[in-house]
Amino acid sequence: MPAQMPPVVNENGLWFEDLYEGYTFTTGSHEVTVEEIIAFAQRFDPQPFHTDADAATASLFGTLVASGWHTAAMSMRLVIDSFPVATGVIGGQGEIAWPSATLPGDILRAECVVESLRDPGPESPRASGWVKNTTTNQHGETRYISRLKAVLWKDPARREMSMSGHE
Amino acid sequence: MPAQMPPVVNENGLWFEDLYEGYTFTTGSHEVTVEEIIAFAQRFDPQPFHTDADAATASLFGTLVASGWHTAAMSMRLVIDSFPVATGVIGGQGEIAWPSATLPGDILRAECVVESLRDPGPESPRASGWVKNTTTNQHGETRYISRLKAVLWKDPARREMSMSGHE
Repeated sequence: MPAQMPPVVNENGLWFEDLYEGYTFTTGSHEVTVEEIIAFAQRFDPQPFHTDADAATASLFGTLVASGWHTAAMSMRLVIDSFPVATGVIGGQGEIAWPSATLPGDILRAECVVESLRDPGPESPRASGWVKNTTTNQHGETRYISRLKAVLWKDPARREMSMSGHE
Repeated sequence: MPAQMPPVVNENGLWFEDLYEGYTFTTGSHEVTVEEIIAFAQRFDPQPFHTDADAATASLFGTLVASGWHTAAMSMRLVIDSFPVATGVIGGQGEIAWPSATLPGDILRAECVVESLRDPGPESPRASGWVKNTTTNQHGETRYISRLKAVLWKDPARREMSMSGHE
């Protein structure tokens, strides 16, 4: 694909120019069920404290808990539904933490903030930003924190206007 | 649960005393299919480059790719099947990166190394370790790297022997 032409995924979405450091949003919510905890874990993290409510009582957690990767994946889904980046939400690297384990019945919601933005220069159609996500349940208990570097594209229309304005 | 009694999940598994800095293992492998890429993405990361092979050709990736969280979850499964920590594989925090995107047909395998271990002291039944995971495909392309801090428990039998020996 030509370097000057970003891939369009969401024509009404957010471009790099639409974001700013401190941009925040709150996602919708998702109630976590025993069934989905077990289904995810059977496929990706088949340990007794994620797959068997009885066995889980003898585990470190003392009860059935969601795989940390399930919490991460549910958080991604909440973000996808609330953060319409024009070319898609694509992360490359970052940090994650699970301060506590997600329980059945948790109603998860994420607060996100664009912590920093970086524009490599006017010649580049791409830029990047660091986004912090904090996922909590209905009692305010933090289940998951991530800080991820996202790929952001500049708006081709505004770039063209800006560049022609300098000619 | 009493502080001195770690939860037993895998009686023949690895305790803190069984591990050392530089301990390495290679997981089994998993071949990634279009169907599972789409199924995961529909639930957790419904973006066209993860859910629609045709739409994906116009995306940043130019082709259908797995969600990064799917690659992370598949890597977790590979580790679970090859790293029998006695009380389970439980991570608390760490760093992750996706140097390239997982494609359909990728045969993923992970190389893991215990990079460091920390024993808070003889009175503690718990300890911790940092484990680095590098997931590559059959062509040696790196799809995912994680460095995660894991909870490790000391072997109650060896602790008792060790403590009674000092009486």
